[in-house]
Amino acid sequence: MSGVNVAVFGATGAVGVEMIKVLEERGFPVKNLRLMASRGGRSAKWKGRDIPIEAVEESSFENTDIALFAVEGDVSRQWAPIAARGGATVIDNSSAFRMDPGVPLVVPEVNGDDVAGSIIANPNCTTIIALVALAPLHRAARITRLVASTYQSVSGAGKAGLEELEQQTGAYARGEAMNVSAFPYQIAFNLIPHVDAFGEEGYTKEELKLRNESRKILHAPDLRVTCTCVRVPVLRSHSEALTIETERPLSPDEARAILKDAPGVKLIDSPGDKAYPMPLFSSGQDLVYAGRIRRDFSLEEGRNGLVMWVCGDQLRKGAATNAVQIAEICVNRRI
Amino acid sequence: MSGVNVAVFGATGAVGVEMIKVLEERGFPVKNLRLMASRGGRSAKWKGRDIPIEAVEESSFENTDIALFAVEGDVSRQWAPIAARGGATVIDNSSAFRMDPGVPLVVPEVNGDDVAGSIIANPNCTTIIALVALAPLHRAARITRLVASTYQSVSGAGKAGLEELEQQTGAYARGEAMNVSAFPYQIAFNLIPHVDAFGEEGYTKEELKLRNESRKILHAPDLRVTCTCVRVPVLRSHSEALTIETERPLSPDEARAILKDAPGVKLIDSPGDKAYPMPLFSSGQDLVYAGRIRRDFSLEEGRNGLVMWVCGDQLRKGAATNAVQIAEICVNRRI
Repeated sequence: MSGVNVAVFGATGAVGVEMIKVLEERGFPVKNLRLMASRGGRSAKWKGRDIPIEAVEESSFENTDIALFAVEGDVSRQWAPIAARGGATVIDNSSAFRMDPGVPLVVPEVNGDDVAGSIIANPNCTTIIALVALAPLHRAARITRLVASTYQSVSGAGKAGLEELEQQTGAYARGEAMNVSAFPYQIAFNLIPHVDAFGEEGYTKEELKLRNESRKILHAPDLRVTCTCVRVPVLRSHSEALTIETERPLSPDEARAILKDAPGVKLIDSPGDKAYPMPLFSSGQDLVYAGRIRRDFSLEEGRNGLVMWVCGDQLRKGAATNAVQIAEICVNRRI
Repeated sequence: MSGVNVAVFGATGAVGVEMIKVLEERGFPVKNLRLMASRGGRSAKWKGRDIPIEAVEESSFENTDIALFAVEGDVSRQWAPIAARGGATVIDNSSAFRMDPGVPLVVPEVNGDDVAGSIIANPNCTTIIALVALAPLHRAARITRLVASTYQSVSGAGKAGLEELEQQTGAYARGEAMNVSAFPYQIAFNLIPHVDAFGEEGYTKEELKLRNESRKILHAPDLRVTCTCVRVPVLRSHSEALTIETERPLSPDEARAILKDAPGVKLIDSPGDKAYPMPLFSSGQDLVYAGRIRRDFSLEEGRNGLVMWVCGDQLRKGAATNAVQIAEICVNRRI
């Protein structure tokens, strides 16, 4: 295949901007690139050229092979079927189709074989970052339960989230008032245990996503997951403290050996040398950093478990890079 | 008793400064106040007067009834026996004596009855903040296992930690270089999964403290605890995501009813109204804020557990206030 026609819808947002960057960085075989936003926008740079950002319309997806969607769920729900009917394969970053039984939900390193059909869903950032590191351990020892606590960056709320933390930081330094609009409260020097809306049983939708999406991606409908999702004053890397119970024993050394060679993972686990994952390292990177791997000594005799710590760039592997990797699978299949 | 002679040793540090403030705020019956630091220091305000900060020496603790220690472990180890021999009751905020079987380790709301002897240890901040909220649930349903993830403020590293986050924030806003010395890496916009030194099995000492100190304070030597401790760019409140398993069932509503009336706890758990604990609320306060209480739906059939989120001011209830509350018990016993 000499090249594919690609559309990025949501090209003015933080994830859309990153998708354009990742397409170029990874040498994706783009024949023609069209950029759209709900209400249009200024142009964006693509290989040194300015590409206009069009206001989306029915004709926008004509002759499109791959449409990368980085828009809100309701916008995806409206436009993905239109793009798909026009012949495009839609890779959608919203939550609109993720739990649709007819739509695959894919992390390429985990379940790339699930890619099929005209709409493919990109999982939630928190799920992607956890599963890149957990799936290899699941294959080796079968994870039965996951207790997760997240430390989520402001980029999860897009450009508005990034700008808000920057504004609040500058305002604090200058002794001025902080703007609060992207998050329910000030996020600078604060933590907000409220990511996405509240749903069933007092869990937020973000917390429920980790459970529901992990089950679908791992093909593990019985996986037991509880989670606390917290927004932290970090710009663009999510971190997660993961406590897993496994069916078969897996020592920390065995887990390290597995993750050392796992696709998409960078093992950094030498605490004595102050080597452990941090947003400082993983931001701007495509790999999920995993470390602090140790035995869960709180389990009863006869039970097996590990505790670990992962970090990953929310805009890249947590969103844009994962979507472009799915697009790469689609393109390779068609060759 | 008409009043007691009080000494604060470590009066130049962040916890020492807070101890002086808390003594005054709580109307502690101080007859005479002496302030010491290892190498002396400038004076501190006490009820509008300037009290000199003396360099500590053998005679410093003469005629002292209560000595509040807010110094490093090795300094405590050297000076606490001297003060105790001189007749003072030492309330020590360091880790030096906490696990000594002859020294009580006390959170007044939890095990105030354990106060005895001439040296009493103040627990680690992370332990205090967790146990104020967990102990009432433990009494009601017996906690068998705790999985904790912490979000620890920079004040845990004292004044140097506070100054470093302030400096880094200002430097970022002005586009200047950040100083890095109080923490192993930049903390502004970052997370560091490394609090205190690394100890057994890849856990940090901070993580082991939560296990060991909780067992001692709750008189629950079999309590199973695992923990991941993380430094976050927050000034002075620690937060913790707590996942507990209990022997007897305890519904979220029952837990809320218990915590609503529990000493030292402020229940703030109305997510629909955006009411949940945050450092923004708990900083400068003496209560431990508890909320986000929900069923742990990841447990196997027949097992009982809850997930919750707590925040507490690290310098106050996590250190100074707890120490002064212990001193109040000592004084009340002597009346």
